Amino acid sequence: MARWTPHADERLIKAAVELFAQRGYEETTVADIASRAGLTKRTFFRYFSDKREVLFSGAQELELVWVRGLREAPEDAGPVAAVEVGLEAIAEMFTERHPFARIRARIIAANPELQERELIKLEKLASAGAIALERRGVSADAAALAARTGVGIFHLAFGRWIAQDDPGALGRLLRESMGELRKLLTT
Amino acid sequence: MARWTPHADERLIKAAVELFAQRGYEETTVADIASRAGLTKRTFFRYFSDKREVLFSGAQELELVWVRGLREAPEDAGPVAAVEVGLEAIAEMFTERHPFARIRARIIAANPELQERELIKLEKLASAGAIALERRGVSADAAALAARTGVGIFHLAFGRWIAQDDPGALGRLLRESMGELRKLLTT
Repeated sequence: MARWTPHADERLIKAAVELFAQRGYEETTVADIASRAGLTKRTFFRYFSDKREVLFSGAQELELVWVRGLREAPEDAGPVAAVEVGLEAIAEMFTERHPFARIRARIIAANPELQERELIKLEKLASAGAIALERRGVSADAAALAARTGVGIFHLAFGRWIAQDDPGALGRLLRESMGELRKLLTT
Repeated sequence: MARWTPHADERLIKAAVELFAQRGYEETTVADIASRAGLTKRTFFRYFSDKREVLFSGAQELELVWVRGLREAPEDAGPVAAVEVGLEAIAEMFTERHPFARIRARIIAANPELQERELIKLEKLASAGAIALERRGVSADAAALAARTGVGIFHLAFGRWIAQDDPGALGRLLRESMGELRKLLTT
């Protein structure tokens, strides 16, 4: 009987990121990743359909955290206040992933196909956010605007976050970007 | 000697859109398009690498019009005011393309690969806009924020424009979306 391998997915992700950083994404194979994690290729394929999938394994969790934030914002919060709660939740989720996020961003920047996938991920985040806001009673137009603006802010602040060294800075950078946008739109 | 064919690209686009609307995008071939336009396949391929390209032939012009609007905004216009000029320019460009835009949107909505391409187009629009704003002396952060916000507004207002019947409504819908966002961010 096969032994149960606890946290195999986390070990595979960690191994993959180490190898991507050391050897490059293109040069790393699934066999390399599995072997570095002390696991088999078969175990790898139980979690990921290919090595690209390792880079996007956080997408579902990101959407979940974002939508949950929007849902759990105080009842009297307007659409933008709810978006701000969603962004805080995202910031918390990412804090410990700073090294991974930096390596990942470098790989994605060098690969147009992965960039497309990243854009689709953000687009889904905007749609899911809009639906969550509508369920709070926000009109469809305002929900789409607020969610899309939130995802735009996330996109920009995330870029600033990985360009600097403090893993805990994402929350502040998100708030700063939102504040800047507010200022730009009112002056 | 081959005869010169004036406006061959416009004729091909018109023929393609008619056929896409009548028969469906998948069912229309390059040969069908060329024949409907009274041209040869060879002429088609002088303008477009494939039939998908017909749907994105306006992307370069869109970027040009947008960036020109940003550049030509009054010198004392801040980043968002410049973005508003860029959006007005886009609205003008699209007014006479309402029937095409509606058919095109339906085709794209049904085809994930085309959706990806559409997202990349919008992403390029945001980058090009940010660069144009930086050249106006806007800081990199504010330029990225304002340009991305403008493209988000365009994306949403465009969706509303093709969902209604007035070809001339895009400018108003863009202004309304911008006004709504302003209100959302300040209340």
